[in-house]
Amino acid sequence: MKKIVSFGEIMGRLSPPGYGRIVQADSLNLTFGGGEANVTAALAHWGIPAAHVTKFPDNEMGRAATAYFRKVGVDMSFVNYGGNRLGLYFTEFGAAMRPSKVVYDRADSSFAHMHPNEFNWVEILEDAQWFHWTGITPAISDSAAQAVKKAIKTANEMGITVSADVNYRKNLWQYGKSVQDVMPELIEGCDIIVCGKGDAEDILNIVPDGSTKSGFESMCRQIMARFPRLKKIINTKRGQISASANTLSAMGFDGENLIKTETVEISQIVDRIGGGDAFMAGYIYGNVMGMDEKDSLRFGVAASALKHTIEGDINLSNLDEVELVLSGDLTGRLKR
Amino acid sequence: MKKIVSFGEIMGRLSPPGYGRIVQADSLNLTFGGGEANVTAALAHWGIPAAHVTKFPDNEMGRAATAYFRKVGVDMSFVNYGGNRLGLYFTEFGAAMRPSKVVYDRADSSFAHMHPNEFNWVEILEDAQWFHWTGITPAISDSAAQAVKKAIKTANEMGITVSADVNYRKNLWQYGKSVQDVMPELIEGCDIIVCGKGDAEDILNIVPDGSTKSGFESMCRQIMARFPRLKKIINTKRGQISASANTLSAMGFDGENLIKTETVEISQIVDRIGGGDAFMAGYIYGNVMGMDEKDSLRFGVAASALKHTIEGDINLSNLDEVELVLSGDLTGRLKR
Amino acid sequence: MKKIVSFGEIMGRLSPPGYGRIVQADSLNLTFGGGEANVTAALAHWGIPAAHVTKFPDNEMGRAATAYFRKVGVDMSFVNYGGNRLGLYFTEFGAAMRPSKVVYDRADSSFAHMHPNEFNWVEILEDAQWFHWTGITPAISDSAAQAVKKAIKTANEMGITVSADVNYRKNLWQYGKSVQDVMPELIEGCDIIVCGKGDAEDILNIVPDGSTKSGFESMCRQIMARFPRLKKIINTKRGQISASANTLSAMGFDGENLIKTETVEISQIVDRIGGGDAFMAGYIYGNVMGMDEKDSLRFGVAASALKHTIEGDINLSNLDEVELVLSGDLTGRLKR
Amino acid sequence: MKKIVSFGEIMGRLSPPGYGRIVQADSLNLTFGGGEANVTAALAHWGIPAAHVTKFPDNEMGRAATAYFRKVGVDMSFVNYGGNRLGLYFTEFGAAMRPSKVVYDRADSSFAHMHPNEFNWVEILEDAQWFHWTGITPAISDSAAQAVKKAIKTANEMGITVSADVNYRKNLWQYGKSVQDVMPELIEGCDIIVCGKGDAEDILNIVPDGSTKSGFESMCRQIMARFPRLKKIINTKRGQISASANTLSAMGFDGENLIKTETVEISQIVDRIGGGDAFMAGYIYGNVMGMDEKDSLRFGVAASALKHTIEGDINLSNLDEVELVLSGDLTGRLKR
Amino acid sequence: MKKIVSFGEIMGRLSPPGYGRIVQADSLNLTFGGGEANVTAALAHWGIPAAHVTKFPDNEMGRAATAYFRKVGVDMSFVNYGGNRLGLYFTEFGAAMRPSKVVYDRADSSFAHMHPNEFNWVEILEDAQWFHWTGITPAISDSAAQAVKKAIKTANEMGITVSADVNYRKNLWQYGKSVQDVMPELIEGCDIIVCGKGDAEDILNIVPDGSTKSGFESMCRQIMARFPRLKKIINTKRGQISASANTLSAMGFDGENLIKTETVEISQIVDRIGGGDAFMAGYIYGNVMGMDEKDSLRFGVAASALKHTIEGDINLSNLDEVELVLSGDLTGRLKR
Amino acid sequence: MKKIVSFGEIMGRLSPPGYGRIVQADSLNLTFGGGEANVTAALAHWGIPAAHVTKFPDNEMGRAATAYFRKVGVDMSFVNYGGNRLGLYFTEFGAAMRPSKVVYDRADSSFAHMHPNEFNWVEILEDAQWFHWTGITPAISDSAAQAVKKAIKTANEMGITVSADVNYRKNLWQYGKSVQDVMPELIEGCDIIVCGKGDAEDILNIVPDGSTKSGFESMCRQIMARFPRLKKIINTKRGQISASANTLSAMGFDGENLIKTETVEISQIVDRIGGGDAFMAGYIYGNVMGMDEKDSLRFGVAASALKHTIEGDINLSNLDEVELVLSGDLTGRLKR
Repeated sequence: MKKIVSFGEIMGRLSPPGYGRIVQADSLNLTFGGGEANVTAALAHWGIPAAHVTKFPDNEMGRAATAYFRKVGVDMSFVNYGGNRLGLYFTEFGAAMRPSKVVYDRADSSFAHMHPNEFNWVEILEDAQWFHWTGITPAISDSAAQAVKKAIKTANEMGITVSADVNYRKNLWQYGKSVQDVMPELIEGCDIIVCGKGDAEDILNIVPDGSTKSGFESMCRQIMARFPRLKKIINTKRGQISASANTLSAMGFDGENLIKTETVEISQIVDRIGGGDAFMAGYIYGNVMGMDEKDSLRFGVAASALKHTIEGDINLSNLDEVELVLSGDLTGRLKR
Repeated sequence: MKKIVSFGEIMGRLSPPGYGRIVQADSLNLTFGGGEANVTAALAHWGIPAAHVTKFPDNEMGRAATAYFRKVGVDMSFVNYGGNRLGLYFTEFGAAMRPSKVVYDRADSSFAHMHPNEFNWVEILEDAQWFHWTGITPAISDSAAQAVKKAIKTANEMGITVSADVNYRKNLWQYGKSVQDVMPELIEGCDIIVCGKGDAEDILNIVPDGSTKSGFESMCRQIMARFPRLKKIINTKRGQISASANTLSAMGFDGENLIKTETVEISQIVDRIGGGDAFMAGYIYGNVMGMDEKDSLRFGVAASALKHTIEGDINLSNLDEVELVLSGDLTGRLKR
Repeated sequence: MKKIVSFGEIMGRLSPPGYGRIVQADSLNLTFGGGEANVTAALAHWGIPAAHVTKFPDNEMGRAATAYFRKVGVDMSFVNYGGNRLGLYFTEFGAAMRPSKVVYDRADSSFAHMHPNEFNWVEILEDAQWFHWTGITPAISDSAAQAVKKAIKTANEMGITVSADVNYRKNLWQYGKSVQDVMPELIEGCDIIVCGKGDAEDILNIVPDGSTKSGFESMCRQIMARFPRLKKIINTKRGQISASANTLSAMGFDGENLIKTETVEISQIVDRIGGGDAFMAGYIYGNVMGMDEKDSLRFGVAASALKHTIEGDINLSNLDEVELVLSGDLTGRLKR
Repeated sequence: MKKIVSFGEIMGRLSPPGYGRIVQADSLNLTFGGGEANVTAALAHWGIPAAHVTKFPDNEMGRAATAYFRKVGVDMSFVNYGGNRLGLYFTEFGAAMRPSKVVYDRADSSFAHMHPNEFNWVEILEDAQWFHWTGITPAISDSAAQAVKKAIKTANEMGITVSADVNYRKNLWQYGKSVQDVMPELIEGCDIIVCGKGDAEDILNIVPDGSTKSGFESMCRQIMARFPRLKKIINTKRGQISASANTLSAMGFDGENLIKTETVEISQIVDRIGGGDAFMAGYIYGNVMGMDEKDSLRFGVAASALKHTIEGDINLSNLDEVELVLSGDLTGRLKR
Repeated sequence: MKKIVSFGEIMGRLSPPGYGRIVQADSLNLTFGGGEANVTAALAHWGIPAAHVTKFPDNEMGRAATAYFRKVGVDMSFVNYGGNRLGLYFTEFGAAMRPSKVVYDRADSSFAHMHPNEFNWVEILEDAQWFHWTGITPAISDSAAQAVKKAIKTANEMGITVSADVNYRKNLWQYGKSVQDVMPELIEGCDIIVCGKGDAEDILNIVPDGSTKSGFESMCRQIMARFPRLKKIINTKRGQISASANTLSAMGFDGENLIKTETVEISQIVDRIGGGDAFMAGYIYGNVMGMDEKDSLRFGVAASALKHTIEGDINLSNLDEVELVLSGDLTGRLKR
Repeated sequence: MKKIVSFGEIMGRLSPPGYGRIVQADSLNLTFGGGEANVTAALAHWGIPAAHVTKFPDNEMGRAATAYFRKVGVDMSFVNYGGNRLGLYFTEFGAAMRPSKVVYDRADSSFAHMHPNEFNWVEILEDAQWFHWTGITPAISDSAAQAVKKAIKTANEMGITVSADVNYRKNLWQYGKSVQDVMPELIEGCDIIVCGKGDAEDILNIVPDGSTKSGFESMCRQIMARFPRLKKIINTKRGQISASANTLSAMGFDGENLIKTETVEISQIVDRIGGGDAFMAGYIYGNVMGMDEKDSLRFGVAASALKHTIEGDINLSNLDEVELVLSGDLTGRLKR
């Protein structure tokens, strides 16, 4: 099978054990993650060839980040080394009504200061079937935005499917350009995007116009009218019961039909970070394995639900576990 | 702002990790706590000037206890050092129907054997606005009872608000005097007390007399009739679903009105020890920040609920987290 | 009181901390357990004299397994040492819809390769009142099957109560004989068995025949007709809500009456392995303490429910905790 | 083989991990130890039947202490339960020129408050060949002193060898009697004692008188003249290079000859607590296995040296490791 | 006693447990340290009033850094909050011939971006007797250099002793000015400096001129000729045997005499980071306690040697431990 | 650069933390290692393309072993999955005179039961320059011996350098053939072997004959006379001071000259397992980087010495650390 390629920043994640606060901690658990690499890592864990492209500092933290993703089976041979530092984020895990909290320390990373041309996309995308990026990358720096633009363009030229989680984070976008300046041109090169109503308004000034019963469908129809390459728009819906329990479903629009999945209840959350990335990985898995749209969305939801029971950013749930959820069995019965 | 001062014993707390039993443990987590110091520590964490007065042995455990509270920002400069030992307690954490368990090893502590006159209350209470004590202190030893009596008297003379959690623990009171001998004189000096119907009966022989619909109100009216300085009587109500889930509300009587808060559900308990102290801290915070009685009680309930998600005796939840709960949002949505 | 004796394999159990997967782990928690020894260990924890008979390799792992059960108070003086290795099993703990998972590595253990005559059962069972075995032992090897047969025969001759959890595991039974060849002769020597409808069909070809409203009762009547020594057949019923929550009840048939217990809800599962063994231990405790059949079953259910809140295979819940559950109190209220 | 019996207090030991100080620790390692029980535990580890007699509180800490020694194979069935608390001690581990430090918190333990008659020594010492005690026990309380006196008397009557480490600790002896009041009568019942020159002076007012070249021999001759039952006096000599390296040798006097062992270098100390108890255990092992005096002393030294490489109070080094040291091989070559 | 004040950056320190490398770690130990704050922290640990001035981000990491130093007793009330991030450094601990390694991630910290005027030095230095800074601060940024200049000037005006460890680190000094541009003016305001021959050459172009036998003395005489306020120049000398063993001595020049201390051997290193800061703290302690120059230097050496046995940047050795080393006792004999 | 390929069993390694014994452990550290894979892993860590060939069970432990070596950068794509189990070994770490101890539990592994033809060596060795195996593999099972024979034959045909550590372990060789039956034919295909005098005698009946001053040279000359393909024979010499300190040197014979390296002292051992494999990796590194024989041996010794300071089987020391040792600097001076 041809490989999946993703591009984006990977950060070190430092979090106190258990439900501790940073002020209480004398050690922090160290993992690594990024909204794009988490997708390829989950795919690699399921046996799909997958490579991630990023830039790390040439020091112990950069090398450890490479090793972390290599461990899961991601091809890290296209990573460049240089620059200042590895971006970091600190996480405290909440419970019940106390929210989990993320504190970013990602400024001035090696990734942010990359040269826009330092990756050879033709070589990287050789033998690839799919390229995935997110709206976080163009938000980090102008050079990162230019690099992702080149990657999309190359993928389009090579006939490779392009997907994006458009994911608008207003705390980023500090380098002088606005999301509305940059993103539309990038979305133009996409075949599939994850996009919610808030994102559509913030990025594209598109709001549901009442033309369809579903606001999401209305949004999709307007976006697709503007971006003719787009074939599918998808999104998840999270029901937030507490920091310890959520529900999850997904919906998608393929230009004609609005498709909704059932809702899966997540009764005990272990670690919800990377849940959206796990959905995307599941959805891509469905696509490359030839599932139809609804099954791909359902696969994404099941995978994402399971991610909430896995420690770290990467979904390490196994295919048989996803299939059990897809079969409707949420009982978690012991497997010997 | 003028400082809050508390007085009482601080013990070392030793507990197995996770849900382990002591017989299974080869290490015990070490924290420190006390029903009075937990209140000032929570206030200090929120930026309120706060000092705690106690006595520690002049050894590694006493110094570690000082350091622990100093870390949170409590002024520990009035602590005396000397005597035999630091009181300890051992805790096992339960789950579902298995109760958490506390085993005390607090006898003959440096605090219990203090000299009744070894604290200079005039100096300590200079620049203070509030003095807090609990019914545990006079239960420990005659000299502790005398010391708290002196502290209350000094606070009264200096025009400082005095609050107490009357908290009757029948396992204590081993030194020859009964709770009914000692406590009434101490309550006389109080402006505000935490007192439930059980406490009122055990300590004051007061039982609801049917004169009001609410037994609590009836109890309060009788207590206030007896102790004219008392302005407010407050209490919490815990709904015990399991060792892993509780509900919490509070009520108060200000001499005229019975005030009740809504009930907050705590769907996943991390550590419930110190929940009552967190309530008291929240209530004091409301008072010193000028909130009205209901908002102060609500602040206490929100803070106490959040304490159940925090490891250790001290409520380290942040003000924005309390405010989120006060706004009615218990969803624990991830904060980036 | 005369002692309880069990016979069976004990394995080392290796599991990642928390909800981690083995691929994520750089350390594995080490405990030891076995379906039979877990029963005697729970009884020893409650003060009942109890001995376990097994075979360990004469190396660090075998000696550690002995020490582990000796710590709980089990008499391990009848253990033989020799042979190749200690059987192991690896466990990952699930949450919500993700199942816990067990991977066995138990082949070619010292226990499997025992000599059928290497235990002197007359000496071992001197001063015993009860002998307990399970269907796992005869499934391991021919020599293990022969050894348990000798043990049962000796117990029968010495007038000792014999109980078995017939527990058919189809992954075992690899040594050339089938469960239907071996088990009936062993069940013949039993006074009490734990047996569900699936087990009855797999082992004895017995299925409910509609003669009674309850399929279980029908099954029991047929089994008892075939095995005249059998006085009681019991079983538990697990309601599988998720990997984090279960319900539990039990039923029994004494030749005349079908007895059912109430259902206990387990709202937060810490470790469900050994839950069935904890039930058996509770049921035996009820029997040897003179409780009637219903109270013995209820004791077993309460003990088993509590086991789900205890780390490791062995039920270390205390008698007062069992009694609290028996009283209907599942609130897990803090005990000071 | 007939059993070895020891009598004395067991304390919980709490120490920070690694070289940490208590003020830095958020967890403390929990082990248990006592100068007498450490001796029987080492003997049990080597397969010698051994029982320890003591008193524990009837709570989680007392039960955990029992379990800890039961794990090593010590018969704990003669332990009594009751009273206030388990004595504790806190340890910080030093390195290089920084000393390790012990802080005791042992006052008012269940052991200290035992009734002098609560142990039935005739029953306990049935089937015993050796009784061991130390000078710590009579230093704790008058009732403990009386209990050990009864034990010695009973052992003498039953023809059981009595040994003692006379071990004068001036911080103890707080209950109103002096070491010189109490110890001589107890030493009268001993066959073998561990005693250094400092002890002899403090306890017996005996100082070397120059009659022999060796001060130790002179001391021994005077002691033996006063206590005719005494057959052997032994002692160790520690060379203190640093907290990380020591040397060790032993000497003994049997009434006629002064015997000295070679000196063993301990180049890396892991945990030196219990080193003296490990020597005593090794010496007793030599005696009960029929070694001559020099070999018994050498066995003690080798065992004690190895103890310094073992975590916790109890010497868990194996017999083959002791024999390797006895053969003069200190190279620590990897064993596969 | 009047307080000691220090000024400088504090970083979070993240290091794998034991001798692990970062690539092997799934958790990192978290402590905090800085070359100036380590000095005041050691002094606070010994009971000297001490305050540290710095700037932290207003987030969990900044608050945790405050709490960390508050725990040791440092007055952190002059810390400002704001800006981007807390500087970090990563450490791997070596052994034998493998060096320990430090990787800095300190760029763009809140401290580096402070406003040069944001500290009110007159208020901060009220009631102070001593102000300490190091050459790291002016190397970080121009505003930091300006701030330290203001602090020195204020201290000079208030008659407060000023000390500095001139400590040239060529990896810093990235903001456009050179060490030779900036430092001389700052040294002008100092009474005491720590300065080695390499520093003198790099910062001041001063090299020993052969006028005295000791190159250090020659260097000192030239420096003092140039900076008339300077009263003492001191330095340590480290003998590097391996990552696990060092030796340490110190020397000083007071304008007239060259003073040298004996050499202390550190036979087992636990954590050598902060060793120089511990020397400075010890030397200041000697000064403020009225010791003469030699005793102050010896106190510094003993304290520094002990620091190598303490985990973390801060010297938590106790005064009695320092005095033991000063007495020449390096045996590390167990203290009960 | 063309890749290095190794073939051999990888086992899970389970060891108590610190200096603990298995009987004391409630968790075991989990790493993975094998005498051949450790070599390729060290090479991959230094940036040399490297692949390892082995067989793992298709379960969590097999997958974790793959991930572990993938993390270091070893190409694990030629691993086959199937069979029973992953071989394991248990390690206790000694100190001073207490030896470290290894207990094997490797029988009946998936590797041992491989089919002799299941690896396609032509495909695997495409683009390889070097093939490495050890004498452990043919000792495990007949099919493993046949597989290694095929690999060597293919490598010879493809002109790839073949190296072997002949490493005779008499505890293995249980499957009916002797080392002398099997090994000579395999050595015939080798260009380079690691072989000591004991190995030569056990495997080849070759003993030094006095023809040269050096017994090693005499041995080498005889071996080379018998195996004409052999170009170099090398070996290490370990000086065993204690479990905590060793010395290390190497020697080699190239058919003409005997070459010896200097001796490196390892003053503090962290983990000596894999030291020999680290030497081999260093020696191969020297060869493929074009160093001469002496420098290759020196590189091997330096790498091996550093391995003793690294946790786990794999040498994760960096090239700059090796070069520091090669320069003669063993001081372990802190690197910032």
